[in-house]
Parts: sequence; structure tokens; C-alpha cells
Amino acid sequence: MNGEDTVLVSFCVPAVSQRHASGSTVGFVGLGNMGGHMARNLIKKGHSLIVYDNVPASVEALKADGATVAASPKEVASQTNLIVSMLPASQHVLEVYTGSSGILSSVQKGSLLIDSSTIDPSVSQQMAEESSKAGATFVDAPVSGGVNAARDAGLTFMVGGPEDAFAKAKEVLDKMGKNVVHCGPVGTGQAAKICNNMLLAISMIGTSETMNLGMKLGLDPKLLAKILNMSSGRCWSSEVYNPVPGVLEGVPSSNDYKGGFGTALMTKDLGLAQNAATATKAPTPLGSLAHQIYRIMTNSGYAGKDFSSAFQFLQEQANQK
Amino acid sequence: MNGEDTVLVSFCVPAVSQRHASGSTVGFVGLGNMGGHMARNLIKKGHSLIVYDNVPASVEALKADGATVAASPKEVASQTNLIVSMLPASQHVLEVYTGSSGILSSVQKGSLLIDSSTIDPSVSQQMAEESSKAGATFVDAPVSGGVNAARDAGLTFMVGGPEDAFAKAKEVLDKMGKNVVHCGPVGTGQAAKICNNMLLAISMIGTSETMNLGMKLGLDPKLLAKILNMSSGRCWSSEVYNPVPGVLEGVPSSNDYKGGFGTALMTKDLGLAQNAATATKAPTPLGSLAHQIYRIMTNSGYAGKDFSSAFQFLQEQANQK
Amino acid sequence: MNGEDTVLVSFCVPAVSQRHASGSTVGFVGLGNMGGHMARNLIKKGHSLIVYDNVPASVEALKADGATVAASPKEVASQTNLIVSMLPASQHVLEVYTGSSGILSSVQKGSLLIDSSTIDPSVSQQMAEESSKAGATFVDAPVSGGVNAARDAGLTFMVGGPEDAFAKAKEVLDKMGKNVVHCGPVGTGQAAKICNNMLLAISMIGTSETMNLGMKLGLDPKLLAKILNMSSGRCWSSEVYNPVPGVLEGVPSSNDYKGGFGTALMTKDLGLAQNAATATKAPTPLGSLAHQIYRIMTNSGYAGKDFSSAFQFLQEQANQK
Amino acid sequence: MNGEDTVLVSFCVPAVSQRHASGSTVGFVGLGNMGGHMARNLIKKGHSLIVYDNVPASVEALKADGATVAASPKEVASQTNLIVSMLPASQHVLEVYTGSSGILSSVQKGSLLIDSSTIDPSVSQQMAEESSKAGATFVDAPVSGGVNAARDAGLTFMVGGPEDAFAKAKEVLDKMGKNVVHCGPVGTGQAAKICNNMLLAISMIGTSETMNLGMKLGLDPKLLAKILNMSSGRCWSSEVYNPVPGVLEGVPSSNDYKGGFGTALMTKDLGLAQNAATATKAPTPLGSLAHQIYRIMTNSGYAGKDFSSAFQFLQEQANQK
Repeated sequence: MNGEDTVLVSFCVPAVSQRHASGSTVGFVGLGNMGGHMARNLIKKGHSLIVYDNVPASVEALKADGATVAASPKEVASQTNLIVSMLPASQHVLEVYTGSSGILSSVQKGSLLIDSSTIDPSVSQQMAEESSKAGATFVDAPVSGGVNAARDAGLTFMVGGPEDAFAKAKEVLDKMGKNVVHCGPVGTGQAAKICNNMLLAISMIGTSETMNLGMKLGLDPKLLAKILNMSSGRCWSSEVYNPVPGVLEGVPSSNDYKGGFGTALMTKDLGLAQNAATATKAPTPLGSLAHQIYRIMTNSGYAGKDFSSAFQFLQEQANQK
Repeated sequence: MNGEDTVLVSFCVPAVSQRHASGSTVGFVGLGNMGGHMARNLIKKGHSLIVYDNVPASVEALKADGATVAASPKEVASQTNLIVSMLPASQHVLEVYTGSSGILSSVQKGSLLIDSSTIDPSVSQQMAEESSKAGATFVDAPVSGGVNAARDAGLTFMVGGPEDAFAKAKEVLDKMGKNVVHCGPVGTGQAAKICNNMLLAISMIGTSETMNLGMKLGLDPKLLAKILNMSSGRCWSSEVYNPVPGVLEGVPSSNDYKGGFGTALMTKDLGLAQNAATATKAPTPLGSLAHQIYRIMTNSGYAGKDFSSAFQFLQEQANQK
Repeated sequence: MNGEDTVLVSFCVPAVSQRHASGSTVGFVGLGNMGGHMARNLIKKGHSLIVYDNVPASVEALKADGATVAASPKEVASQTNLIVSMLPASQHVLEVYTGSSGILSSVQKGSLLIDSSTIDPSVSQQMAEESSKAGATFVDAPVSGGVNAARDAGLTFMVGGPEDAFAKAKEVLDKMGKNVVHCGPVGTGQAAKICNNMLLAISMIGTSETMNLGMKLGLDPKLLAKILNMSSGRCWSSEVYNPVPGVLEGVPSSNDYKGGFGTALMTKDLGLAQNAATATKAPTPLGSLAHQIYRIMTNSGYAGKDFSSAFQFLQEQANQK
Repeated sequence: MNGEDTVLVSFCVPAVSQRHASGSTVGFVGLGNMGGHMARNLIKKGHSLIVYDNVPASVEALKADGATVAASPKEVASQTNLIVSMLPASQHVLEVYTGSSGILSSVQKGSLLIDSSTIDPSVSQQMAEESSKAGATFVDAPVSGGVNAARDAGLTFMVGGPEDAFAKAKEVLDKMGKNVVHCGPVGTGQAAKICNNMLLAISMIGTSETMNLGMKLGLDPKLLAKILNMSSGRCWSSEVYNPVPGVLEGVPSSNDYKGGFGTALMTKDLGLAQNAATATKAPTPLGSLAHQIYRIMTNSGYAGKDFSSAFQFLQEQANQK
């Protein structure tokens, strides 16, 4: 769904249990770039799959790999009590779960519904409530790690839901990822993800400003990065993903800001953070300004560049119009 | 001069040379909380000292420890060709060097002048130029580490100046600190310090916002800190100096924000960063907003609290007026 | 619903048509501080009213004034084809229109539904769509002017909806207000209101900063206000509602920031603006920061003070903690 | 010196006294785009002029108009006790007044020195102090109005200095401008100018954000401007200088942002405001962010466009890189 492969370093919680669950039928809704790989990993690990997507080609690919095809989320729900969904945004989750052909229109009592989409935490909570009315349990389980991690079963899942539902969900999620972290009640998986990405955005712009200022004051960028990384200014963005071309190898800044985690995707996540902050009345002055800066960048030609291109945006002087 | 003891983690560059220089006479101007300890360490390591301060009690204390007392910076300069200064702010440095009784009014050709004050880099450059006209060499060497580090000869010095002057300065600085880093030409010592502190301020407020938002979204603060620290949002403020009471032990946030690095001092350093950014035309949107937030905090009762009290400032809801 | 009496200066568009419509039955849902006065004005001008509110006391008051009482919004809709609603926030509008006992569950074809609540424009649009499916027309008509204006039929209505629906709505709204402005399609009434209030918040904080800075630079506040008001810096906040105590008479700043438009209400409106900006991908750096500042003020004891207390918040130095 | 002709609306204080002073000799230092016109107006009104500039062509032009040429500011000061200066920035003022060939090196006791440059208020205060030591009186008198206003003697002067010095200065300034406002002690002329321009920048960006948001929400820009201008959101930028092309005629936004007051010049003035705010410890969150936004715009191709191009900067989506 996104290419944030290199953005999140891996979580250290080891995945231990991989017992049973194999052999059971899993429903899967949403077979895009991420979901397709995730579903395929479940087949590889021995599950029968019943799948749905509104893009015919995506469905065909999974069918070729052995999945059974359903005509709607509703039909998926009528045939299995364990369903995973992976969708682009809140409105798709609302449709897939509560729409007229949605999962909840035919969900079986006792079903476990695992949503790996990155959406507004309040929508996750709303879905949990609706599911509960129908006798099912809903957990949010957004991922970090991009398409490659999805393909290689290397994702990290941040899970929000009751303890026992987490334990059950973990058995399935372990087959698609390498770390599964329980964050608390429903919505906290989303909360953890948007909190991390908000702080990441702040740190990245902060690092970009600082490196640019230091360079204008006569400091060599590699030396400045070294000094920061020995000191209290250090952060993931200065150490692992430095935004100044040439300071580190193998990062997007040294590859014309190609690859990595796109500015437009970061802007979307920051929008979710802002919505959550407004809803909970939490002041986020820097997070809010970071959102605005990425919004302006998205509007100014940086949408498809890695989010570390904040350095380029702040530095540029050549592109005089 | 400030109590930022715990703020900067130590630099890793080992201090190697500790040869000769012992026995020579060193001038020292500015014998406050920091300077007094620094001067005393030079005496302990075998130097003769000739000192000046405009506070009689400070001078008396050093005299008791064996220093010779001068009546002005000018008199210090007439008696030694190696001088260290440690002063509160730019205007004091201007007065001590270029005032009518200042060092440059009687400086000997070939003198080395080492200024450890934290000031505007452009003032350091101006002093270097004036010194050069008088046949002397000026280097800036601001410190990280607070009063305890000054007492224990554990300071880190960030030095700006020519290569050979750095080598000479290092012999003296090694006796007052444990790390001496060459940052580049004159002014880059100041530049490195204000860059680090700007990024630190951004990260600290960012961490405060993020922790507060996450908690309002239902996340346990220790768990959230753990997740951030495993992920791309991690920074020194989240890992080593977390601003939420109870997340870490032995940091100011768990001691009612006492000790540490005061909000007013951080505000002063951010003012230097903003002046430098304006002078070099470097955009610093988050650094600038961080400055404003610490300014407001300074005005609102947080001046003397540790700068991690940004969390408390953003969170507070009880103190209804 | 709020006390923003003094905030919006009056609109100049004269209300012309006041013909017929008198005598017809109007439904009214939401009889709070604002809605109660509005409903009463319709009775005074000759309408029969059928009303609903979930607070019994509010209903009783209107009953005493001659209104017929309904048991639910649904019952209101079954008895008249012209309904006005005045509710606190988006969720109440959703419930009153689309809930199980909501207006749309029994709305008559051809009905005109006028919502005067201040809510998210996208919710207004959603309500219009749902209404259309049921054969009814929905317009948004948020007000400016507070409780006194509601009582005196002096409100300004900003109306979003089709031209002919506007013409019909105007006949009713004219009886509760003195200005009725057509802003465009559904949602644009809300849009106009939140745009105005966002720019107002920016100007007010900007004026507060500027007055405080000027005073610290030695300018007399009355003289500075005079200079600004003759110059390009002038705005409504500097001219009509100056936030510095003593500059103008009869404004909240000269009455300890009592009365006027509360900081918490401004924060709510700025939250709507931010949601709209995020949804439409419009960058609003200053609007976003203004939101954050009012959010922090709301958390710091200013919730109930007039929004011009931004000056006090920025200036304060006495309340050292 | 700048082209801000259209930016400041005129001050209303009438210029009354135009008695004597005619015929006396006036010194003039700084004969650029602004200063040349100003000096010429003094000649036209009957003064003898003795002038200096370091650009030979500028000097020649004035010589052709009848001025006597001096070899340095020092020589100017030795021949007249009434001097006007008009220089680009703080460092030029420092050089012209306190340099080795500066005015103060030969100033006559009782001289009146009028500086019309826009500079840091603290530099004005420093010059006043140095002048006082030499027995002369210094006043700051920055202008609003651009090259055309300078040519047509239509400038507005904001004057800081003692009452009697203001009265004397006004006699001369009246011949170059149409409004002369006394702002208070030395430095307050500069303070008034930078305060106005800071609030102007905030209002302009705020108006740009608001217009763009409203348009994205479906409002017609002319209608939105009309609604704002009837309401509490109105400001000079929305009413007189609207940044959206086509809303008003005869403003830079309707002429591809040509003419008017350039973004780079606004950025410079905002830098002075920030320096003043840092020095006086006045929090200016929106002023500071406005500075950063104009800084980024200056770096991104908007340096030479009118400052109302903030709208274009926020709106742009076409220039995808």
C-alpha cells in the first residue's frame, strides 16, 4: 500500500507462537500491493483463503495461487469466522464493514476481524462497537514496513484490542510479519502508528533545518552529523536516514530522494494525527506545523519524493521562477 | 554558567595529548560558576594563573587558590600570551576583548585567545578579526556539560579556529575537559553548539506532543516510549530524557522537572540559533516555533524548570485560572 | 449556543422580502440558548410551531409560549414540511437527521430542512445527500451573532444551498435575523463561517503579538494602535476589538476579558477549519498554529475568557509557578 | 530603496509647519533610489545641500542639481549641523556614523542627525547614545512609501526622538513627505515600522490561507472577500490588497504579482522584527512563522514577486518537479 520499507526500523519483540491455526480458512479483503503479498503468505503457511477485492485483476492473481473468490465482503463473512482486511483509508473500511454488502451484514457470532489498514483510530473504535453488536470482535493492526516487508513476511503489526483477541490475532499475524506488538484497547494500534510517524516527521524536518543552518554557518555536513549523533540532538533521522545528500550511503537522500516513504503518504498520516489531536484536544504545535510543511511540499512538486526531501525544500535557492 | 549537566551525552573523541604546556602562565577572565572551576583545574594541573573578574568575591576565591590577580583584562593580556575567557553573553565578550580596558588593548603578538562563552558565532568571527589585526589568534570553544562537569574536568569543548591554533588550544582545554572536538574555522564551535541545541529543543517538544497525544488516545506512556524507541520516531529525548514523569528514573521529569537544563537557558540558546538563521537566511520553521514555545513557557512560570517541562506545559489542564 | 455577540460586525446586505409564509407551521429542533430565542421569534411573527428538544425544561418553555410539542424529530417531520434545527455539533446533527427517530425517517417529500448549527461542511453535504434521497431539500445556515442577536432577531445567516431553496429559506430566516447571505451550494454557509473565524483568530493573535512587541520596544499602546489603524497592518482586531486593556472602551480586553467570544468556542471553530483544510488538502500554516495556540490557552486557564485574551497569554510574566 | 509604494495607506496627521529652515544648509548621506529623490526635494524647497555617497554616479547626479560634494561623511559633518542619512541596512549606518571617516568623528555640537534608514531599533539607540556623547542629537525616521512617494515628496516618516528634536526634524522632513508622526523616544520610529510590517505579513498570509481554503470548499473568491470584509475577519490585506488574482483590480495579485512590495524586502523587515522580539523577549509565534514562510518563499523563486504571492505559494499544484 505504501513504500515505507526503509522507514521504520524493526521492532525487537520476538514472535514466538506459531502453533495450530494452520489449516483453518481465513477471509481476506483488500488485495492491493500490500494485501496481495500478505494473503499469499497465509496460503504459503497452509491456510485456505477466501478473498475479495473490487479490482478483478487482483482477485485473479490470488485465485491463481489457490484462493477461493467471494462476490462481496458479505460473502466472505458468511464462509469464515476469521477475516483480515487491508484497505487504503477510513472510507473504504467503513464501506467494507458496514456497507450494504459489508462484512457485518452476515458476520458469524464469535468471528475475529483484523483490520490492518492505517485509518483514524476513532473509525477503528466505531467498527469495534458495530462488530460487538453483531457478536464479533474487531482489532486494529496497522503495519510498519513496506511492500518488500509484506512480501517477505517481515512486517511489524501494532495491535489494538482485548488481550484474548490479541492472542488469537497474533497466531495469524505471525505468518505475515516478524513482530506483533500489543498496544492496548481497540484503536491503540492506530494511535501508536500515527504517534510514531508524527514524531518522525518533526524530527526529519528538524534535522533538515539544523543541517542546513549548520552548513550555512560553515560546518561540514558529515562532521555536523557526527557531532549531533554523539550529542543530545541525535535522532533516527540524523543517524540512520540523514536527509543531506552524501552524508550516508544507501538512503534516499543520496539517491535524489527516490524510493523510501513518499511525502504525500507522510502528509496523509500527519492528517490522521491532526484529526486525532483535534478530537482529543491534545495540543501538537510542531506536529501541526510539520503537517502544513509536508502539505505545502506535496503541493509544490515533492509529493512523490521521499519525505527526507524536506532538506531540499528548505535549502533550494536555484529554482528561481 | 548553566546547569546543563545531564543534557549532552558525552562526545566520544578521546583526548590524547597531555604533554608540556604545564608550568606556563595562563590568563583567565570570567570566574563565575563555570569559569571558577575551570581555572582551578588549570592550577591543579600545574599552571600559574593570572585572573580577572568584575565580582570581587570570585577573584578572592581564586587568589586563595594561588592565582595572581589582575586589575583588568588589559593587565592580564600584558602578562601572558595564553588567555581563556568564560563569559555570560555576547556583550560581555565584546567588552572584555574590545573595551577600553580590554584584552586587545595590550595583547602580545602571537597570543592565543580561547573564548569558551556561548555567544553569537558572528561575534566570535568579529573577535577573531580584531585579534588578527593585533597579531593574536582567537578561537571559539563553547562547552557542553554543566557545573559538575566543569568541576570534574569533564567538559566537552567544540572548537572553531585554524588547525594549528586548535592543536595549541587542545593542550590547555584537555586539562579542563575530556573531549575536545575541532569543528572548523572560527565560529563553527558556536555553530555546532547552537545547531545541537536547536534540534534538541525541537525533539523535546515533539516528544512531549507525541507522548501527550498517545496517552490521550489510550496508550500507556511506558509502552508508547518503548514503541517509539524501537521505531523511526526515536530520539535522545524519547530514549534518554523522556519528558513524561515516571517513564524513566533519574531524569528531571521524574523529579518535578527540577535540575537539568533550565527553560530560560534553552530559550537563550534558541535565540542565538534564530539570530544565526536570520543572518544566514536559513529557514528554520520548527526551530523558530520551538523558540517561541520556550519563550512563552519562560513567561508563564517555567523559566527555572528543566526544558523537558514542555510536556507539562502542553498537558496541563488543572491550573485553571 | 455561544456568546459571540460582539464578535462579528453586522453584514450589510439588507433583508428585503418578508411576505407570506406567515401562518404556516414550522418545525423546530434544538431549543437551547440560541434555538429557544429563534423559535420564539417565529411564534411572534405569526407561525405555528411544532418543537422538539431532549431537555424537558426547554420544551416546556416553548410550550408555554404556544408551541406544540413532538416526541421526536421524526414526529416533527411527520407534521410539517418546513423544519429548522439548531444543534451544538456534528454528532447531534447526524443523530437528529439520520438517527432511528430522526427527521429523515418520516420526512415528507418536498420538505425544506434548514440547519443553523455550526458543523463540519462535509456533514452538511452528507445531510443534503441523504435528504435528497428522501425527496427533501437541506440547506446549511449557520449564524453569526450571539444570544442577544438571537433574542432580538438580529442574527446573520450564511446560507448554502440551491438558489430556489435559498429563496424559500430566506422567508423564514428573515424573521430571526437581519441579514441572510447566499454563499453558494450546500456546505458553503459553514465554509464562510469557518473561513471568517480562522482569519479572525490569526488576526487577533497577530495583533496581540504586535501590540506586545511594540510596547516592549517603548511604544505607547494607544499610539501604536493608532499608527497600525492608519496603515497596512490594520485589521478588525486592531481597530474594533483591540486586545490590549485600555486601548478601547467597551470591549472585553477592558473588562478583564469577560464576555465576548470564549477561547474554547474559538478553539472548536478552528478545529472545524483544520478538519476542512485537511480534507481539502489546503495548507493553512498560520491557521493551524492559531488553532494550537488557542488549544494551549484552553488547557491553561483561558477557556472561558474572551479570545482576545491571547494578548494576556503572550504577555504574562507575573504568574511564575 | 524599496518599492513598497502601494503597501502603506497614508497617515492622516497633517503636516502643518513649513516655516524658516529654508535656506539653511543640509547634509545628505546616501543618494540611492530613495535618498536621491529626497535630497533633490530639499534643493527644490530652497536648501543648500552638501552630499556624500560611495557610488560616484549618484554623487554626480546631485552635483548636477546644485549640491556641493563632500569626500566623506566626516566632511559633511564638519560643514553643517543638520544631516539626513538614508542607507540600506544597520551595518551601513554603523559605518557612516561611527566609522573612522564617519559623521561622529567631526560632528558639531548641537547638530541634529536624522536617519531615515530602516534598521534594528537597538542600532538607532546606540547611534543616539554615541551622538549624545559628541554633543549631537540623533533621531530615527524610517519611511513608508516607495520610490514614487520619495520623488513626489509623499513619504510618511515615523520619528523616534525627544520632543524638541522631533519639532526641528519635522521642518525638514515636511519637505520630503506628507506625514510626519512622532512615535516616542529614539528607536520607536523603527519599532512602529517593524510592528506594522509584522502584522501586515501575518494578515497577508492569513488572508491567503483563508481565501484558498474557502475556494477549495466551494466559495467564489469575490463573494468570500465580500463576506470577510463585512465581518470580523476583515483586514487591509483582504480589503485593499487582496492576494487572489481577479478579486480586486490594480493590485499586484491581478498583475502576476509584479510591482508592489517584494517578498525579499518583507523577509528582511520580518528579520528585524524577530531580532527585536528576541532582544526584548517578546513571544511572536505567528510573526516568527510568517518570517519563516517568507524566507522559504524567498528561497523558492518568489524573492522578486510582491509579498501577496503568498497566495500563489500556498495554492500552487501545477509546478510539479
